[in-house]
Amino acid sequence: MKRETKKYAVGVDFGGTNVKLVLVNAAGKILAREKFVTAEAAGQTAWMNAVAVAMDRMLTACKLKKAALAGVGVGVPGFVDFERGFIHELTNVPGWRAVSLKAKLGRKLGLPVIVDNDVNAMTVGECAWGAGRQLQHAVFLTLGTGVGGGVLINGGLYRGAYSMAGEIGHISIDLHGVVSPQGRGGLEQYVGNRRLVEYAVKLLKSGHTSRVEELCGGDLEKITPELLAIAAQQGDTFALEVFDYMADCLAAALASVTYLLQPQAFIIGGGVAASGAILFNPLRRHLAARLSPHFAKRIKVLPAKLGNDAGAIGCAALALT
Amino acid sequence: MKRETKKYAVGVDFGGTNVKLVLVNAAGKILAREKFVTAEAAGQTAWMNAVAVAMDRMLTACKLKKAALAGVGVGVPGFVDFERGFIHELTNVPGWRAVSLKAKLGRKLGLPVIVDNDVNAMTVGECAWGAGRQLQHAVFLTLGTGVGGGVLINGGLYRGAYSMAGEIGHISIDLHGVVSPQGRGGLEQYVGNRRLVEYAVKLLKSGHTSRVEELCGGDLEKITPELLAIAAQQGDTFALEVFDYMADCLAAALASVTYLLQPQAFIIGGGVAASGAILFNPLRRHLAARLSPHFAKRIKVLPAKLGNDAGAIGCAALALT
Repeated sequence: MKRETKKYAVGVDFGGTNVKLVLVNAAGKILAREKFVTAEAAGQTAWMNAVAVAMDRMLTACKLKKAALAGVGVGVPGFVDFERGFIHELTNVPGWRAVSLKAKLGRKLGLPVIVDNDVNAMTVGECAWGAGRQLQHAVFLTLGTGVGGGVLINGGLYRGAYSMAGEIGHISIDLHGVVSPQGRGGLEQYVGNRRLVEYAVKLLKSGHTSRVEELCGGDLEKITPELLAIAAQQGDTFALEVFDYMADCLAAALASVTYLLQPQAFIIGGGVAASGAILFNPLRRHLAARLSPHFAKRIKVLPAKLGNDAGAIGCAALALT
Repeated sequence: MKRETKKYAVGVDFGGTNVKLVLVNAAGKILAREKFVTAEAAGQTAWMNAVAVAMDRMLTACKLKKAALAGVGVGVPGFVDFERGFIHELTNVPGWRAVSLKAKLGRKLGLPVIVDNDVNAMTVGECAWGAGRQLQHAVFLTLGTGVGGGVLINGGLYRGAYSMAGEIGHISIDLHGVVSPQGRGGLEQYVGNRRLVEYAVKLLKSGHTSRVEELCGGDLEKITPELLAIAAQQGDTFALEVFDYMADCLAAALASVTYLLQPQAFIIGGGVAASGAILFNPLRRHLAARLSPHFAKRIKVLPAKLGNDAGAIGCAALALT
């Protein structure tokens, strides 16, 4: 009986702009949502108060008591010591350096709290209730300004020796490539949103033409991956070639991951991934071309399913397991 | 008591040239050795008979009974389905395609048999009784004609979703690089023995000079990685630069592995790895340069310790665990 009453959890997706909360049941169904603006709850105390208020509101809306919750999972954009629930630093949120959030928030809420990196949380969410349901071995990627990743091994998230594994965006695809603080030729330096736009703009300035020039009203500064995706979906040759280039860069990194770990599948989320076939078709083709048939025929490339909820749902999944 | 009497195991390193056998105790100490020429025991029946004879000889030499053995581990140079102990194919040994070796040899010997890829066996050996003792998360590489690898995760060998993980030699270090049946830019295409020699010979033919030209008696066809290592150890600038190049190629792949898995250490074995500082010093330097400080300061690069015994000892370790 007691186990029955603990089949709910709260997930807190701590973003640089918004904090999104969900209350889910054991099947991953969202029963209630809350949201507050990160800047309006600045500092640790205000933030924890806002989380407590939002949690109470969701419990009330669902007619549940706090005792029904297995716990609260928090996903943060930065380096976390998972075991201790300790935040080393949040790059884009002031006032969050060296914080024992698991202990502090646990005391505040009177519930078990788990703190993890946001991309790890998304990985857990997609593998519990999204595209990776039933998978035991999968690698999750999220494509955005940066490229984040998470590694599922034997059904559990793999965090590496010091909680920092899964940095797929820094896998090198070119030993003589773009230099960054993370090394040379890191994937993110080629397929991150800004880099992809830079690549397209450079080609357009050198004389290529594209429907995307109309879509941005002639102002190349306004080109975004979304505009490129719209142009590609309309059949624009140039935009399709940009996605083909992106897919091949991604494929180079995914081929390396496949040879090293041989997962069952890659699950790909984030803004650009929502574009569908214009990315996934060339990605599957390039990946197969970069693998021996033994590996190529076994690997799957799947779009993520949980969309913008992946973070918050994943945090709840962390608290339930 | 019964457990006490099972603290021995036999390891069988099935090479293309020789089959090496060891009998070890639970501490990994070699108590007896046997060896036979692969070509002189051609075919499955002759091979299994030769293994049975060698095992009996080792047991007699150690005054042990068969009942004292926990089992027999076999490492083979090719693709294996570990769960079933099934050999898909041995590239360099005729007559070994689609063989249920675990079942067949188990019946023949009346003992539990485990069959694995030879590099997986070396990984297990190095992590049980070699350079990786005490490690829970490590990646093993063996440098030779090919570049093989094994991945230790949470103290156990990780085989991936379909028993084929750990192919570090095929990690791409250059998305526009050397084309092979395994894709583009695979590490092995740069640091495999033949490729490394080709690289050196090409430079020598284009006008570089080196002590290695004397060491090979003026016949560039006779250059080997070993001769390059001797020249480098004697301070030859050219040979040192060849090792620096090799180390940087290796570092590009190891940086990618570090970002993905964050192991505690890399353990590097195989012929060239025995050269010591001329490889390990530049390798550590290049790897650190290719990683952010958070990752660089935590990762270790260790030479393998078990040398030519790694395969056979690793097979015994597989049978003991």
